[in-house]
Amino acid sequence: MSAGPQNAVVKEIPPKAADLSAWYTAACLKAELVSYSPVRGCVVLRPAGFGLWENLQRELDARFKATGHENAYFPLLIPESLLMKEAEHVEGFAPEVAWVTHGGQEELTERLAIRPTSEVIIGTMYAQWVQSYRDLPILINQWANVLRWEKATRPFLRTMEFLWQEGHTAHASAEEAREETLRMLDVYRDFAENVAAVPVYAGVKSASERFPGAVETFAIEALMPDGKALQSATSHDLGQNFARAYDITFADVDQQIKHAYTTSWGMSWRMLGAMIMTHGDDRGLRIPPKMAPIEVVFVPIVRTNDDRAIAACREAADTLKAAGFRVRVDVRDEQPGWKYSEWDLRGVPVRVEIGPRDVDAGTAVLVRRDRAKGDPQQKQSVSVEALQRVLPALLDDIQRSLYAQAKQFLDERTIAASDRVSFYEMCKNRAGMIDVPWCARPECEAHVKEETGATTRLLRDLAAGATACIPCGEPAKVNAYFAQSY
Amino acid sequence: MSAGPQNAVVKEIPPKAADLSAWYTAACLKAELVSYSPVRGCVVLRPAGFGLWENLQRELDARFKATGHENAYFPLLIPESLLMKEAEHVEGFAPEVAWVTHGGQEELTERLAIRPTSEVIIGTMYAQWVQSYRDLPILINQWANVLRWEKATRPFLRTMEFLWQEGHTAHASAEEAREETLRMLDVYRDFAENVAAVPVYAGVKSASERFPGAVETFAIEALMPDGKALQSATSHDLGQNFARAYDITFADVDQQIKHAYTTSWGMSWRMLGAMIMTHGDDRGLRIPPKMAPIEVVFVPIVRTNDDRAIAACREAADTLKAAGFRVRVDVRDEQPGWKYSEWDLRGVPVRVEIGPRDVDAGTAVLVRRDRAKGDPQQKQSVSVEALQRVLPALLDDIQRSLYAQAKQFLDERTIAASDRVSFYEMCKNRAGMIDVPWCARPECEAHVKEETGATTRLLRDLAAGATACIPCGEPAKVNAYFAQSY
Repeated sequence: MSAGPQNAVVKEIPPKAADLSAWYTAACLKAELVSYSPVRGCVVLRPAGFGLWENLQRELDARFKATGHENAYFPLLIPESLLMKEAEHVEGFAPEVAWVTHGGQEELTERLAIRPTSEVIIGTMYAQWVQSYRDLPILINQWANVLRWEKATRPFLRTMEFLWQEGHTAHASAEEAREETLRMLDVYRDFAENVAAVPVYAGVKSASERFPGAVETFAIEALMPDGKALQSATSHDLGQNFARAYDITFADVDQQIKHAYTTSWGMSWRMLGAMIMTHGDDRGLRIPPKMAPIEVVFVPIVRTNDDRAIAACREAADTLKAAGFRVRVDVRDEQPGWKYSEWDLRGVPVRVEIGPRDVDAGTAVLVRRDRAKGDPQQKQSVSVEALQRVLPALLDDIQRSLYAQAKQFLDERTIAASDRVSFYEMCKNRAGMIDVPWCARPECEAHVKEETGATTRLLRDLAAGATACIPCGEPAKVNAYFAQSY
Repeated sequence: MSAGPQNAVVKEIPPKAADLSAWYTAACLKAELVSYSPVRGCVVLRPAGFGLWENLQRELDARFKATGHENAYFPLLIPESLLMKEAEHVEGFAPEVAWVTHGGQEELTERLAIRPTSEVIIGTMYAQWVQSYRDLPILINQWANVLRWEKATRPFLRTMEFLWQEGHTAHASAEEAREETLRMLDVYRDFAENVAAVPVYAGVKSASERFPGAVETFAIEALMPDGKALQSATSHDLGQNFARAYDITFADVDQQIKHAYTTSWGMSWRMLGAMIMTHGDDRGLRIPPKMAPIEVVFVPIVRTNDDRAIAACREAADTLKAAGFRVRVDVRDEQPGWKYSEWDLRGVPVRVEIGPRDVDAGTAVLVRRDRAKGDPQQKQSVSVEALQRVLPALLDDIQRSLYAQAKQFLDERTIAASDRVSFYEMCKNRAGMIDVPWCARPECEAHVKEETGATTRLLRDLAAGATACIPCGEPAKVNAYFAQSY
């Protein structure tokens, strides 16, 4: 924590409702999640931010392993000729690629791309590893940095280099590959809702929002407080496209040589951006307990000639630490009020205050970060001995309550539009997830985008009784959520 | 595991003693730790290899956190002008740097280096974060990929891109920085000896072996079976060199503005190479239990019309898994003998065989990977119920025994040379760690290197009574271990 006591004034952030974007950037920087770096488009993920990423990693990784996946690591650099093999993929990614042209003093005969994603290099390896149906499925995940050329910088949401995980699997049948695609989509939904406390819609993307080279792209989409959607993870059914381009073939049970069916799926640190934007308030971050690097912070209240609170906090914290809680004791030489604001800004779910009278009484004051100041349920006094018993339920309740608030917002802002005019109006005004019967024509989507900035976020089955596309009047094929998006 | 049953012949590897290098490469490839990739100098770390890396990460990361460090993540790319600020550092690394010159279609105005190590970018950030002595120390570690231009490829030991961790700390005093440097050196020693079961010497490097820009470099050095040393981790006291180059200053207690003192320390996947080479035998890998992704593999022995062993193995494995053991059941449609060789190759510490008679008797045969075939202590029959009780001691014993064998080798091959001729002879012949009083002159070291290929690996205090440098006859200043090295 370099937000040391030298900053004796609590850092101000602008109100969230007035300008979400300004609030977001200030909150990320002042809570010391990230710093801008001297490299254009790149941020530093500071310890407070990396702690969030570690919790995401731990939770997701456990889910990947429980569904049979193993981790591996593939090279960062991809020879240009390899990248060029899958036509749609190249077209989609070439404009975003950083190129290595020199190694040491030597100019390379072939340029090397820094991976924007790893289908190409992983597909090439799978082609070597797979001979028979017995070698399938291959279920591999990689935790890695990737790079996509980018001029704008917005912490977590838009950076040139970012951290993510990318799963890459190969299967003997189309059905199995589709099952895998949907299984991982559901892992993402589960993580978003039950760990990050971010409610999402999960579903299929329209053709124009599809991953370059995929047969079908699925995604989870969250809705931010400004009414813009944020795609938080994707899962791609790649069919045989990459297997054909990179020659992943196998001898099937019937002795026929066939192309494998592959999938890929990824979640990046964007998910952290979605979580921060969803839950934060005017005092700063509100981190869901399951994602919080520090679940409980102790602030001792020290009086002249009476610093017993420090020992009391340390003792209580040690007991909790031994019981598996993530705790910190703030013994910095600062006023308690300053520390309260500081930890509010950083979003720690529960603050425990212990003062001289608490020491005498063996009590502590618990303060919930999720409740507003003045809310009668924000604070409670409990005996120090009860902490270990009280905290799990309290942390659970905070987790649930953050989710419930966000869910209510998503529900309220998922709106059916019943005519063309109000649909276009809602799209322009960022009314939320605008739910309409849709013709599924790219031209229709392109027109909506041009006029309003909104695109389809996800598609689902056509609602019963619907016949006409609300945006254009042609026959409807599906229902779609339209929204502007990050 | 793509070493599927299609390979009905067990993969052969050459004998270890005859040609360590050929044995090593074959073992790494055939145990599926790594694959060569289509990118020159880069390997793929396959699931069996990544499992080793995950165990290294888990064990080291816990030690870093227990010593007060936090993780963070810094950008992959470093602008050329930044890299150029520390003169010695640049000189050391510039020949090894890969350069990004184009992003998308655009040619960059300033080249970007792919990090060969991160002192530069991290120092730049620390300069922004540190103002006062209260902001110190900063104790940060990063798990990352780095890249050093390299034509040769040897799994784990020499690759262009590699995985590592790099700790970077900043302190208010030289004493504190030195303490940190030595603390992390000891963390590495502890990890090498007590987790990877690789005995090492820990100590200081000679001037010519120092990290570019460091005041003092410390390292742990292991001795491979061919008598070559392998530097397995380094810890650098950077003094104020990087603080001066990157402007890391702070207002001290006395209000004076001072430069901070920094350290950096790293262990890479080379450590896995040291572990593999140290312990393997003619049958393949022998993984120390604490590093083994699979501690115990069950091989059911199935007879025609009697596959009860499969259920028995699964039941026993489930019990062990629930108790925290890392286990696998091999139910592939192959002969048990083939499977035994396969798991021997992969180095799993304990194999459990259960056949029809075992099912009747409620027993299992435990086979230790560390013992030779035919060794009376290689196998024992135990009741299945006793497995959970017997295994921890057995795994501990294997861990200890692997360490003891390697320690005996290191002890036997640490040899004092008493005259110049035998010293040069021993260096040429890779006799081991050649321990001699030394003058500490770079010219002397350079001459030994030229004649024999050996260099100093570590220095220590001059042995009592020693006066003359054995290699050259000048006055001795220290004792040094000389050896050829990887």
